[in-house]
Amino acid sequence: MDFFEAVGKRYSHKERFLPDAVPLEHLERIAKAGLAAPSGGNAQSVRLVILPNREAVQPFSDLTPHGGLETAPAAIALLTDGSTQHADLNFEVEDYAAAAENMLLAAVALGYVSLWLDYPYLTNEDTRRAAQAILGAPETHRMRVMLPIGLPASNGARREKMPFESRVSYGKFGMGK
Amino acid sequence: MDFFEAVGKRYSHKERFLPDAVPLEHLERIAKAGLAAPSGGNAQSVRLVILPNREAVQPFSDLTPHGGLETAPAAIALLTDGSTQHADLNFEVEDYAAAAENMLLAAVALGYVSLWLDYPYLTNEDTRRAAQAILGAPETHRMRVMLPIGLPASNGARREKMPFESRVSYGKFGMGK
Repeated sequence: MDFFEAVGKRYSHKERFLPDAVPLEHLERIAKAGLAAPSGGNAQSVRLVILPNREAVQPFSDLTPHGGLETAPAAIALLTDGSTQHADLNFEVEDYAAAAENMLLAAVALGYVSLWLDYPYLTNEDTRRAAQAILGAPETHRMRVMLPIGLPASNGARREKMPFESRVSYGKFGMGK
Repeated sequence: MDFFEAVGKRYSHKERFLPDAVPLEHLERIAKAGLAAPSGGNAQSVRLVILPNREAVQPFSDLTPHGGLETAPAAIALLTDGSTQHADLNFEVEDYAAAAENMLLAAVALGYVSLWLDYPYLTNEDTRRAAQAILGAPETHRMRVMLPIGLPASNGARREKMPFESRVSYGKFGMGK
């Protein structure tokens, strides 16, 4: 799919998915796109766990019931390895956000929908640790975001965006074209 | 350009650019791709300033001489509006990183090269404030990253990445396929 078409079609799918399986080859293509994102100092802090079927996704849905997780036939969990970072300059958030965005677009480019689900892990330390425990991830690795992936049971829509002109200036801040 | 081709071709261009101008229409397509990225709570904290020619880029190159900025014929400055965020949960970094990644890929999709240049503004508060002053941006808006954009004087290469298998697990952390 054309790059700009993928950008235009991407939206946060918070509703039901069809039960159709996502081929592992597709999940791997999505993961590869994520790992191809840039990272601060090329430290590559992002780690991924492919959850290739409903059985693998279910424990996370049980942990934090959420419209985007309850029916997803597959998902990719994204963690960052904090041990890759310098003490005085930490790029884990930038790294994982760029990787997540690549994966959201890659899912769309392959005909799927997805969702950037970080809220449960970000707002509750116990939930984050529980998710890491389900994954069997070491303490150095922080659970950042879950990306449910599959075909939508019904098409959703992107939330409304502010007008281009209100967010973009020319030459100086606040200047029109 | 195909989405996966754009992902595959993207690299951080830290060398010279050709002086060829980048049409404003292309800079706007890149900016639109950036603003189409998701944002925490759809708060849309990202603001962009298009620097459409060398004259507009030069003050930033003077401020922080850098291989990626010294010859770029155009650039886009990315700021985040902190006033869009809740006090207890701030997504500015996630927001700008997703938008920056979209713009890097959009530049590649249109045949250009670019660079995620945040180091000067991140590591030196005076430099960040000076950049904001050049842009005429209000105090609420934080300079995050500069994206020089243009055609490369010579083709660069992506820095080496760790093997896929060392960053991706299946089902559980650390498990192979």
